[in-house]
Amino acid sequence: MQSWKDYLEKNKDRFLNELFDLLRIPSVSAKKEHKEDMIRCAEAVKQRLLEAGADKAEVYPTAGHPVVYGEKIIDPSKPTVLVYGHYDVQPAEPLDLWHSGPFEPVIKDGKIFARGSCDDKGQFYMHVKALEILVKTNSLQNNIKFCIEGEEEVGSPSLGDFVKGHKELLKADCILISDSALISLDTPSIDIGMRGLSYIEVEVTGPNRDLHSGVYGGAVANPITILSKMIASLHDENNHITIPGFYDDVVVASDEERAMLARAPYNEKEYKEDLGVKELWGEKGFTTNERTGIRPTIELNGIWGGYTGEGSKTVLPSKAFAKISARLVPNQSSEKITNLLIKHIESTAPAYVNVKASVHHGGEPYMTPLNSTAYKAAAKAMETTFGKEPIPVRGGGSIPICALFEKELGIKIVFMGFGLDSDNLHSPNEKYNLENYYKGIETIPYFHKYFSELK
Amino acid sequence: MQSWKDYLEKNKDRFLNELFDLLRIPSVSAKKEHKEDMIRCAEAVKQRLLEAGADKAEVYPTAGHPVVYGEKIIDPSKPTVLVYGHYDVQPAEPLDLWHSGPFEPVIKDGKIFARGSCDDKGQFYMHVKALEILVKTNSLQNNIKFCIEGEEEVGSPSLGDFVKGHKELLKADCILISDSALISLDTPSIDIGMRGLSYIEVEVTGPNRDLHSGVYGGAVANPITILSKMIASLHDENNHITIPGFYDDVVVASDEERAMLARAPYNEKEYKEDLGVKELWGEKGFTTNERTGIRPTIELNGIWGGYTGEGSKTVLPSKAFAKISARLVPNQSSEKITNLLIKHIESTAPAYVNVKASVHHGGEPYMTPLNSTAYKAAAKAMETTFGKEPIPVRGGGSIPICALFEKELGIKIVFMGFGLDSDNLHSPNEKYNLENYYKGIETIPYFHKYFSELK
Repeated sequence: MQSWKDYLEKNKDRFLNELFDLLRIPSVSAKKEHKEDMIRCAEAVKQRLLEAGADKAEVYPTAGHPVVYGEKIIDPSKPTVLVYGHYDVQPAEPLDLWHSGPFEPVIKDGKIFARGSCDDKGQFYMHVKALEILVKTNSLQNNIKFCIEGEEEVGSPSLGDFVKGHKELLKADCILISDSALISLDTPSIDIGMRGLSYIEVEVTGPNRDLHSGVYGGAVANPITILSKMIASLHDENNHITIPGFYDDVVVASDEERAMLARAPYNEKEYKEDLGVKELWGEKGFTTNERTGIRPTIELNGIWGGYTGEGSKTVLPSKAFAKISARLVPNQSSEKITNLLIKHIESTAPAYVNVKASVHHGGEPYMTPLNSTAYKAAAKAMETTFGKEPIPVRGGGSIPICALFEKELGIKIVFMGFGLDSDNLHSPNEKYNLENYYKGIETIPYFHKYFSELK
Repeated sequence: MQSWKDYLEKNKDRFLNELFDLLRIPSVSAKKEHKEDMIRCAEAVKQRLLEAGADKAEVYPTAGHPVVYGEKIIDPSKPTVLVYGHYDVQPAEPLDLWHSGPFEPVIKDGKIFARGSCDDKGQFYMHVKALEILVKTNSLQNNIKFCIEGEEEVGSPSLGDFVKGHKELLKADCILISDSALISLDTPSIDIGMRGLSYIEVEVTGPNRDLHSGVYGGAVANPITILSKMIASLHDENNHITIPGFYDDVVVASDEERAMLARAPYNEKEYKEDLGVKELWGEKGFTTNERTGIRPTIELNGIWGGYTGEGSKTVLPSKAFAKISARLVPNQSSEKITNLLIKHIESTAPAYVNVKASVHHGGEPYMTPLNSTAYKAAAKAMETTFGKEPIPVRGGGSIPICALFEKELGIKIVFMGFGLDSDNLHSPNEKYNLENYYKGIETIPYFHKYFSELK
C-alpha cells in the first residue's frame, strides 16, 4: 500500500517526537513516588488515541494505576482486533550506568535511548500511529480496540478486575501485542510462547539486632551465610532446579518443536562476546535457545544485607534479603510454583533463623497456536514488509496477563514484537532502533488488512 | 582514696557534658565526607587533654586521619603508662533503626545512647578525666602519655608509620587500653586476648550489563547465585571453615585455659533470649565462649547485587558483591589468612564469572601475659573498686594495632575495658551505661597507683 508508506514517510519526525514526549514521563509503576506521573502518562495516551482517530478514549481508574481504553469501531459486524500494551516502565536503577538520562530520550547511532523506548512505550505507540495511518488514508477494514495498562511491570494486579468488569467493552476476535522481540530485521520472527512468572521476596532474620562480628562472630548464625546456603541449594551440579515437584507439570517439547526452534540463527561465539562472558551457564542437556524458551528457570533478581557502603564495617547483620523469580513454561501454574518456592524456602531454613517469604507477582505461561487466524495474519504481514517468512520462536520473557485474557475473553493472542534481545530491557541504556520503530508502524496496518480478509 | 571519689562526685555532670560534646562530632573514619569532622574531633581531644592537665598535647597529621598525642611527665625516671584509644567511630547505618540520632547523645534508663558512646569515645575519655583527677588532687605518681588515633575502625592504616616515626615520644613501660567489655559490674573481667582480623571485599561479574531475566534467564550465570555458592562453601556441615590451611597455625587451647574460660558466667537461655534466636550456631566441639574467644571465624559483613529497591524488577544482574572478614587467634597471621581467603575465593570461582577480591584491612591476634605488671595492676585496681577479683577472659573483637605496639615499642598491653557485650557496638542504638563510665573513671587512677608501686 503505497499510500500507507507515503503517509509514514511524511510524518516520520512527528511520530518520533510524539514518542519522545511519552518517554519523558517517568511512569515507574513500582514506585509510589511516581503515582502522579502514572496518571499524567495515562492522560497523555488517551489524548494521543483521540488525536490518532479513535472514536472514544477513556482513562479507567483501578485499585492501582489506571487503564487506558480506546476504540475505533467502523462496523460492529466486522472483525475486531484488541491491541494490548503498557505505558508503565521498569525502575531505571542503577542510574549511574546510564549514558544519558533514562527519561531524557536521545537518538544515538540510529537508536532511541530511554527507559520504556522498547518496553513498551515505543512498541504500543506503533499501534497508535498505525491507527492514524489507517484512519487518515481511509483504509481501515476492521474495528480496533486498545487496552493500555499501567501495571505490567509489577504483575498487572488490577487488570484482572478490569477485564472481568468490562468483558463487553473488550470483546474482540483476537488480541495483538507488541511487547517482545524479533531475531533481527533480516530474520523476522514471531514469539509463539511466553514464559510464566513466580516472583517472591525472602527475608532471613538471625539475631534481633546487628551485632559486632568480633564479639558474636562464630556463636550465632549469620543470615547472609544462611541465605547463601539456601540459594546455593536451588540448583544441582547440572544446574537442574532441586525443588521437589518443580518440573512435574512441564510439557516436554517434542523433537519436532526442538527442530523448529533450532532454525533460529544462533552463534555461540557472538552470543558470548555480546555478554562478555567466557562460558555460558545453564541446564545440562539443552541448547541456549531451549534454556531460555522451553525450560523453566530460577533467577536471583536481587540480594542485600549487612553493610553495603564504602569501606569496611565489622557487623554480623540481623537480616538478609533476596528477590527470587522463576520463569515457567506450559503447563506449570504460577500459583502452584509460587507455593512450592515458598514452601521450599521456608522448609529448608534452619532453626537458627526466621524466614519470611512473600509474593510479589506472577503470571501463567502462554502459547499461540500456529494455525490461528491471528498467527497467520501476523506471519503474512511480516512477510509483506520484511520480504521473508517469519520464524516461530519461544520467548523467554513473560506477559502475565495473556492467560487472563484468554480465560476471560475466550480469544487468542498473537505476539508481533519488533524489539531486539539486545535492547537492554529492564537494564541501563534501554534502547529501541529507529528502524524497528518505523518497520513496526509499516507492518501493523497489514496485520489488520490480512486479519479482516482471513477472518 | 576519698579525695578522688569526692572530686569525681563534684564534677560528674561536667564529665558527662564534655563527653556529650565529643559524641556530637560525627567522626566516621570510613567515609570521606567526614574528613573535616575528623580534624574537628582531633582538635577537641587535644584541647581536652590540655584542660585536664597534660603538659603538652598535639595533633599529628598522617596520610589518613590525624593522631592526637598528649603527655603529663612528672619525672622521666618514674614509670610511664601509654594510654591508647580512638576518637573515630563506625558508620551509623542503618539509620532508620536508631531510636534517637546517632550523633545526638541522650540519656535513657541510665545509659548514654550515641555512636561512639562505648566504642571508644566514652572509654578513652575516662582516661582523660582520670588524668584530671590525679593532677587536680596532686596524687599522680607516674608519667602518663596518650595516643588517641582516628583510624581504628578502618584498620589503623596510618598508625604503623606514626609509631615507627615516634618511638622515643611513645616510649613507655606499658600500654593501657579501654576499648573492650567486662562481663558485668557484678562480675568484673579483663580481656587477656583479642582476635586478629582479615577483611576482604569480593566482586563477582557475570554478564557485562544487567539483563532481562526472562530473555537471558537460564542461559547465563547469575552472579548472585554464583556468589552464594561460593559463600555457602566456606563452612562445612559442622561449621568448620573449609579453606585449606585456614587452621594450620591455630594454637590449640590447653585444657587448663579452657577451664579458666569456663569460669566466666554463661547462661545459654539468657544469651539466646537476648539475641532473639531459637538456636545458636557455631563450630562443632566448642562452647559459645570458646567460639568467640579462642577459635577463628569467618563472617559475612555485607552482601549486595541486583535490584534491592521497593517492589520487583526482573533483572539478571551483571554484578554481586560481598564483604567478608575472618577473626583470627594466635598464631594465625593476618596477611597469610588474607592471602588464603583471596586465593580460595578466586580459585573456587567458576569460569562463568570474573571474580576480584580486594583487601580492606587486617590485624594480628594478641595475648596479654597474666604475670605481667600491667595485668597485675589492672586486676588489683578493679578488685579495689569492684570489691571482687576480675576474671581473665578472651575477647572476640580485634584491636589491630596491639601487635604493632608490641613489636615497635617492645612493651606489653593490658585491656581494661568497661563496656558491656550488649552495648550494641557497631550497631544501631550503641550505648554505654553511665555507671560503667563513672566506674571506669574511678578505677583508672588506681591502675596508675598500683602500676607505679609494682613496677
